[in-house]
Amino acid sequence: MLVVKIGGASGVNINSIVTDIANQTASGEKLIVVHGGSELATELGEQLGHPPRFVTSASGHTSRYTDKRTLEIFLMATSLLNRRLVGQLQNLGINAFGLSGLDGRLLVAERKSTIRIVENGKRKILRDDYTGRITNVNIETVRALQYTGHIPVVAPVAISDSGGVALNVDGDRAAARLAGAIEANKLVILSNVSGLLSDLADPNSYIPNISTNDIDDAINNIARGRMKRKLIAAREALDAGVKQVIIANGKIDQPITKALKGEGTLING
Amino acid sequence: MLVVKIGGASGVNINSIVTDIANQTASGEKLIVVHGGSELATELGEQLGHPPRFVTSASGHTSRYTDKRTLEIFLMATSLLNRRLVGQLQNLGINAFGLSGLDGRLLVAERKSTIRIVENGKRKILRDDYTGRITNVNIETVRALQYTGHIPVVAPVAISDSGGVALNVDGDRAAARLAGAIEANKLVILSNVSGLLSDLADPNSYIPNISTNDIDDAINNIARGRMKRKLIAAREALDAGVKQVIIANGKIDQPITKALKGEGTLING
Repeated sequence: MLVVKIGGASGVNINSIVTDIANQTASGEKLIVVHGGSELATELGEQLGHPPRFVTSASGHTSRYTDKRTLEIFLMATSLLNRRLVGQLQNLGINAFGLSGLDGRLLVAERKSTIRIVENGKRKILRDDYTGRITNVNIETVRALQYTGHIPVVAPVAISDSGGVALNVDGDRAAARLAGAIEANKLVILSNVSGLLSDLADPNSYIPNISTNDIDDAINNIARGRMKRKLIAAREALDAGVKQVIIANGKIDQPITKALKGEGTLING
Repeated sequence: MLVVKIGGASGVNINSIVTDIANQTASGEKLIVVHGGSELATELGEQLGHPPRFVTSASGHTSRYTDKRTLEIFLMATSLLNRRLVGQLQNLGINAFGLSGLDGRLLVAERKSTIRIVENGKRKILRDDYTGRITNVNIETVRALQYTGHIPVVAPVAISDSGGVALNVDGDRAAARLAGAIEANKLVILSNVSGLLSDLADPNSYIPNISTNDIDDAINNIARGRMKRKLIAAREALDAGVKQVIIANGKIDQPITKALKGEGTLING
């Protein structure tokens, strides 16, 4: 069992990823696909006159402030990506089935309605944020889809634990939690970089291996920006029992096949 | 087994429909929900600087010309509605599960890539249209969801019979085909009118009963605009074995309960 996360950033080659998913499926691999959508959400927000507002928490993490309208834009953007992926996979004869964490309460999250940020050196509190931290995965839904021969394609949206509010969740961490819940051996995280880079100026300088003991050090001292989140997701996946996480290049041909052969940053549990 | 179509036009009271779906489900009714999205698609298209273009066929039917961009807008709008409905139902404790006709190839359609229209009295051919006519329903997917305790909520999008192209399909007709395939007893079509009106100026002038023999006459001589499509959908549902179609008011409290008690235009097979 393999979980593949497809990053939403520009440069990621969706065609080659989709073709490789078809190859993997043909060779008998059981797959779950999770995707992002941040870039398309940003684009759509700008087109709709509601550009994203990125905020930085006291601990230094950057995230998208998700007010009600931003949430709706995020839902539309991730749904469009989901439909596109399902269509492309179906076109290759793969019986893909799109869903979000709302459907059958697949991904349940605790809403972070108040976020503490730092802006121009000042601490502020933002309310009415629609983001969440996943607390529970109802994996039976995905198992049932797999049992009926489908390849689940999951959008990074969760449902509030206390009701039916849709929440923006981090796609990498959603993939990690799904991989843990489905007892996947491996999680492949594809993005527009070739792995955890030791030198940001050199796109080929990816670190081939990180041991579990070194993840925290890598998060704090090597990773920048989005890569911090990917490593946090990797740690969550390993904590949940996944054997190996591979952070790999999604811009190349056969990205999954190559990742599984060791091209990328391998993190072993 | 009951199929409920929720119209996408303004005035339809989503809250009262969702509450009534919860009531029906609590009383043991097995339900499938199908929704529209035309109004939200129009709104979104206008916001994005790509307003809809409505065209009239040689036979007098009006439809949305769906170029590539309009298709994407339609996918986003219907997905947003789908996510909203699923969230609202989940909020009431109903284990809703959203899907479109792409997922598991639920709704397969023949693409009408060339449409013949009349504009300013002249005949024209429009190409690159992304609309379709449903040719096949893979109902096993919906049965599997019902078996696992879910209420399917279906967006009016189909997949091309020859591959993986998403297609805009008429929501009423999609509901009719689903109702036939799942062997539903009844199809309730809720919109912002109280039924087939004998007098368009009087919103309460709905015709209480139409026999199968009279449908064609009603389509040709009584119905106007969208109501023609609803009657065509009703005829398709009856042809597919559904026992009764009810075209009813979606603006009121308990719209499904009242429709099932006979408030609306009843068409018996």
